[in-house]
Parts: sequence; C-alpha cells; structure tokens
Amino acid sequence: MPAAPVSGRTLKQQVFECVRAAGTIPRVDVARQLAISPGSVTALTAELIEAGLLRESDAPRREGDASRGRPPVALGIRPEAGFAVGIKLSDHAHSAVILDFAGNRIGQASVRSDALQHDFDKLIAAAEAVLYDALRPSGLTLSDIRVVGLCLPGFVDHESGMVPWSPLIRERDLPLRAIFQDRIGRPVTIDNDANMVTLAELWFGAGRGLSDFASVTIEHGVGMGLVLNHRLYRGARGLGTELGHTKVQLDGALCRCGQRGCLEAYVADYALVREASTALNWGNRGLTDPHVLLESLYDHAKAGNEAARAIFHRAGRYLALGLANIVNVFDPSLILLSGERLRYDYLYAEEVLTEMSNLTLQTGRPPPKIEIHAWGDLLWAQGAAALALEQATNVAVGADAASAA
Amino acid sequence: MPAAPVSGRTLKQQVFECVRAAGTIPRVDVARQLAISPGSVTALTAELIEAGLLRESDAPRREGDASRGRPPVALGIRPEAGFAVGIKLSDHAHSAVILDFAGNRIGQASVRSDALQHDFDKLIAAAEAVLYDALRPSGLTLSDIRVVGLCLPGFVDHESGMVPWSPLIRERDLPLRAIFQDRIGRPVTIDNDANMVTLAELWFGAGRGLSDFASVTIEHGVGMGLVLNHRLYRGARGLGTELGHTKVQLDGALCRCGQRGCLEAYVADYALVREASTALNWGNRGLTDPHVLLESLYDHAKAGNEAARAIFHRAGRYLALGLANIVNVFDPSLILLSGERLRYDYLYAEEVLTEMSNLTLQTGRPPPKIEIHAWGDLLWAQGAAALALEQATNVAVGADAASAA
Repeated sequence: MPAAPVSGRTLKQQVFECVRAAGTIPRVDVARQLAISPGSVTALTAELIEAGLLRESDAPRREGDASRGRPPVALGIRPEAGFAVGIKLSDHAHSAVILDFAGNRIGQASVRSDALQHDFDKLIAAAEAVLYDALRPSGLTLSDIRVVGLCLPGFVDHESGMVPWSPLIRERDLPLRAIFQDRIGRPVTIDNDANMVTLAELWFGAGRGLSDFASVTIEHGVGMGLVLNHRLYRGARGLGTELGHTKVQLDGALCRCGQRGCLEAYVADYALVREASTALNWGNRGLTDPHVLLESLYDHAKAGNEAARAIFHRAGRYLALGLANIVNVFDPSLILLSGERLRYDYLYAEEVLTEMSNLTLQTGRPPPKIEIHAWGDLLWAQGAAALALEQATNVAVGADAASAA
Repeated sequence: MPAAPVSGRTLKQQVFECVRAAGTIPRVDVARQLAISPGSVTALTAELIEAGLLRESDAPRREGDASRGRPPVALGIRPEAGFAVGIKLSDHAHSAVILDFAGNRIGQASVRSDALQHDFDKLIAAAEAVLYDALRPSGLTLSDIRVVGLCLPGFVDHESGMVPWSPLIRERDLPLRAIFQDRIGRPVTIDNDANMVTLAELWFGAGRGLSDFASVTIEHGVGMGLVLNHRLYRGARGLGTELGHTKVQLDGALCRCGQRGCLEAYVADYALVREASTALNWGNRGLTDPHVLLESLYDHAKAGNEAARAIFHRAGRYLALGLANIVNVFDPSLILLSGERLRYDYLYAEEVLTEMSNLTLQTGRPPPKIEIHAWGDLLWAQGAAALALEQATNVAVGADAASAA
C-alpha cells in the first residue's frame, strides 16, 4: 500500500492562508472552508492576532442583509506585519517588487541590463541596486524586509540555493543564495524565473482557482512552470520542467546547452539570429548586435522576405510541437504564454495554434485554452516576491503540533 | 493568493489507509503518523471496527522488548471485509486478479487473446470469462465482489467511464463502464492500462515510498503512468500522460492515431513490422502475422542482418529521446520500464540508456535510475484491482463530517 502523503502544513498555517486568500473573511467561513470546528478557528486566530499577523475588521455585509445592529466581525491580514521583495534578473532588464504581508504590491523598480556580459560581480551589484531602487520610495529599509526572493533563467535548485547553470553566469554550480544572503544580510530564496512568473499567475493572475496549468515563457530561452493540484511543481528532484531542453529532433540543431535538437535551439532568439545573417545576406558585413539583427529579420519577414519568413515559420512550428507535447502529457486546462519575445507575434499566430491543435491527441474534446500574457518583468519579480512572502509566512506562523495531515 | 488545496480525504479514511499501509499497527503509531490525538484515533477506529472493516490483533513485540505480560494490541484490516477484482485487457492476453480487503492477492486467471480483431462483443465476453475464471477456484461468487476494475490500452476517461479510443475497440466514445456494469451487475471502474501497472508499482512494487516516479510501458503501443506526490496523476482533464503520442519528429512517421511523428510510430511493434518486410525482403511473399514477422526480424537482427539491426537501433534511439524528455520535464527519481515487448532487449540495451543520458540535461547530478520490470500481465490486473479496492474502501469507510483539509 502506498505511504499516506502528508500535507506538511499545520492547521494554523492553513487558517492563515485561508484568510490571506479571502482578503477579509468571518471566522465561521474559515471553519467551513477548512472543515474544522469554529472553536479551533477561534483558538488559532487568537494566536495569530496575538502574534500581530491577523487583525479583526468589520465584515462586508452580505447582500440582502438589511439588519442594522453591529456589523459582523471578520479577519484580515495585518499588511504591515512584514514585507518581502522579489527580484527578476534577465538578459534585458532587472526588476524588483515589494509586497506587504497581505500580498499588496507597494513598491517596484526596473533597470535595463545586458547581463549576457557574464560579469558576475556586476550582476550581483545590479541585483542589489534594483533592490534599493524599489525600497527607496516606499520609505522602508532593508531591515523591514523579511525575505528576498531572487529569480533568473537557467537551472536553479530552489532547495539547495545552488545554480548549476544560468545563461547570465559564466561559472557553474554557484551557491547564489548564500552569496546574495551574505551580501545583503537578509534571508534570500532563489528559483528559476519561469517558475516565478507561474507562481505570480497562481497567486495574482489567470491561474487563481485553477488546479492545473502550464506557463510557457519565451525570453532569451524557453522556460516552463507547471502548477499541479494548486501547487508549483518543481520536478521530483527540484530542477524540473525544462521544456526548452526537451528534444524535438534527434541529432537536430545545436543548443547552447551543448546538446542537439532542443526546443530552444529552434525557438529562442539565438536560434533565429544564427540563421538571420544567411537570410539577410549579412554574412560579409561582420558581427552585429543580435537584438538589432533579430529586429531586422522581423521587419524583413513582415515586408515579405521569404527566407526571413521561413525562419519564423519553422520556429513557430517547433513551438507548436513543444506545446502539443505538454498537452499530450499533462492535459492542462490552460497554457499561458508569456515573456519578452511575445512581441514577435509569429510565436502565437493563428497557424501556430492550429498546428499545435493538429499535433495534439484528438480525444473529441476542445484543445486547452491558450492565453497570451505580455506582462512586463514586474509580474515575474512579483512572483519571486510571493515566494519570499511564503517563506516569511512559514517562519512567522510557525510550526504547530496540532498539525492535521 | 491561491485557493488552499483540500485533501479530499476524511480523517477516518486516512486512519484506515494508514492501517492498510502498515499491515499491523498499534493505535499510538497511527496517532503519531497522522499527527492527531490518540483520542481521535480511538474514536475513529471504534467506528471502523464496528463497521467490520478493522480488527484488533496482537502487535508484534518491538525488538528488545523482553517484557512478558499481555502483548500490546494492534490494528489490522479484516481481509474478508470485502473483495475487489481487476482485469487487464490487451492484444495478447486477458488477465484477472482478486484482492481481499487487506490487499492480498487471493485469486488470478489469464487467457490468451487476439483482441485486435476488434469484435467488441467478443472482447466483453472475454472480460467476463476471465473474471469467472479467477473467481471459480477462490470459492467466491460475483456478489462477494464490491467493485471490478477494468483496464485497457488507449484513451480511457476514468472519471466519466468513457473510452474515446482504444486499439482494442473499433467504436469511438464508448461508455465502457456502463456497458460492463450492466452486463455483470456489479460496480465497475475503468482506467488506462499503463496507469494501472503504475498504481500496482505504487501499492505493491518499486514505487512504494517514492513520491514521484514514471512508469513507461511498451506493449502494442507505448504508454506511461506518472506518480506525483504519492498519487497517480491523470492529467488535469483526466486523459493525460500519453507519452506514446508525444511528437518526436515534425512531419515524421505515420502513427495509428492518424498523426505524424508520434513516439509510438517509431517504437511500437507495428512501427517495426511495417519496415520489417523491406528489411527481410518479404515484400513479395504477401501478408504475414505481424507477431511472426517481428520475431523473425528480431532473429535476423541478432544474427547480424544490418537492415534489421538498423530498424531496432532507430527504435531504441527514439525511445531514448522519449525517456530523456520525461526526465527533462519531470526529473523523476526512477523510471520503470515494463510491458510485453521488453523481451526485445534492444529496448533497454546499454546504448539506449547511454543515449538517453546524453539527451538529458546535464545538471551535474546522475540521471534517474532506470529499472526493467518484465512483470507479466497479472501485475497490471492487480493494479486495476487496487483501483477497485480503493473505490470499495471509499464507499465502505465513507465520508465523515470531521474531515480535516
């Protein structure tokens, strides 16, 4: 018989999260949602109020409730109970977002970057700088921040705080969490960037209330975050869901990871750029900024250059194949596409979606919904802040012997 | 904020499953494992004993416990509290297994089949026949069986009881559960066969105690079952994890599902058979039994026929790619390979495992363990029986207002 899975959350944590999810909620509704006794709720919320994490407020009257008298009492989070910061590092910009304890965004900052220069000291300095940029207008200081969440592309081991590989960092197996923690003197948590935009969708976006969805990101590379049963799935060993490196062609195009046939090697901008100089006949004009080359390729395709169109067409078809494989394996109800490169509309052209549908198992049901979310980087940073807030909450609410599995 | 996931299991169910997983267990250990009070355990087990589902027995003495006196009392399942049958239908054999309420196998039967004849009435009659074959020696009658679990290859919707498509059935969208239930007059539950061998691994096999693993099956087609967080994952919409129909080649080989480039179209026996007549120069000898053709191809490959070897070599490489993609997305700690076709050892030759490793993201950690489980069909049927037993248990133990989320 299988070992019974244990939820790992104490009842007190569940009560707290129930209140945060609701915003404002009467005790009796907390008891009903968690299927526990009103007495337990009263006892646990008393501890949470005592600890300065919850407060009482007037509950909004239910519709049709014409009674005068004293309005019913509800529970809410004390927003000033603590703050968390999230930072997104990328090849084109670094961004930071501050959340209060109730999850409201109360500060933000962004700076342009060219992190592909691979200078690690500059990268860390830039991360610190954007953190202070976000703090300054809010009137908070670093000591007000309970946890800082940091996300970046590549293979990031959230549990151990190590970065086995990132396109932004030349070194392999870097203990990034420890390094940044030492530098700023506050607790740090790190994760892959695609996971964080997925967490943001789960907490604040289209994923609220969905049990299972996939979020595919197209930036310098191709990433994915998966939510299974309302929780971010990081793979069984913590480095999972590397959609960009699933193989779509045996012995195919060379990927920057060193292997051949990865989805990224057909869809990412570097994959387009390396064919661009051929298509544009730029071979003898020497090296050009890849962003300039890509923009030019895109303009030529729009203007009818067949070679340029063929490059985007192939990239779109491989993206369709990659998305179809996600559907064939996970059968999610929703796939979100986001990331900086979605301003290239060939990535979600009607023909790409049709091809995806044609490569998906025909079971008689409609294919999953695809939504394009051209959020800026701030949503990614907000996801990293949510991760940090979750960690801060676990520490603040604490473990509790009365945990129910 | 995300909605808090609810476990959906009552405390009473958790207590019951805890006892079944342990075999024999003192009340105090149940309380410790579930982190609930000994008083709650006493109250809940009293109800379960009253209902005839649990019984008290002597607990095995702990090592070093030299006390004489009365041995401590433990809890166990009453095996005779109810029985469940599981049936596996396939292209080469039909099998059935009977489990008692404690999960012990107490009966079994197998008959050869050629279910690809696509005669649905014969298929249903054969399912009923193998069920009676298993019952007869056990001394049980159909009325002793609480639930019958039925599994088969193809797209099977466990929730609705519908079969959108199966290679064993010509009709599409067949309400198989209702049909078989009407025929035998007992509750029936249905599922995909690869899911059931995976459930068997989770309950009885290598998956016990693993939170996340993948089980890949190679029979007439290629299937997969996924266990995530100790539970079988059926995809968000109930038809998930169709590894055999993930695309490994854009515009590739034609699959029997009608699409091109599916993994199955390179690895399944029909994929090999359709190239075999070319390799063996049998084109002008007319149609042959595909099993005979495949066996002959295999013998030729072993004897050094280069064309025959090339067919198996390519199939092995595509299987490696399919497995590598599972690792790249799920990062499981273990992949189990099972199914009738594993007697063709090219499918797990050293070069296939090496290729898989080469196609897997290099993160500095060892690739996941691969185990070959050349179980017979009975284990698959036992998985279907476990599914049936789970349903019987849910009904018997029942819902309970004191459920803890």
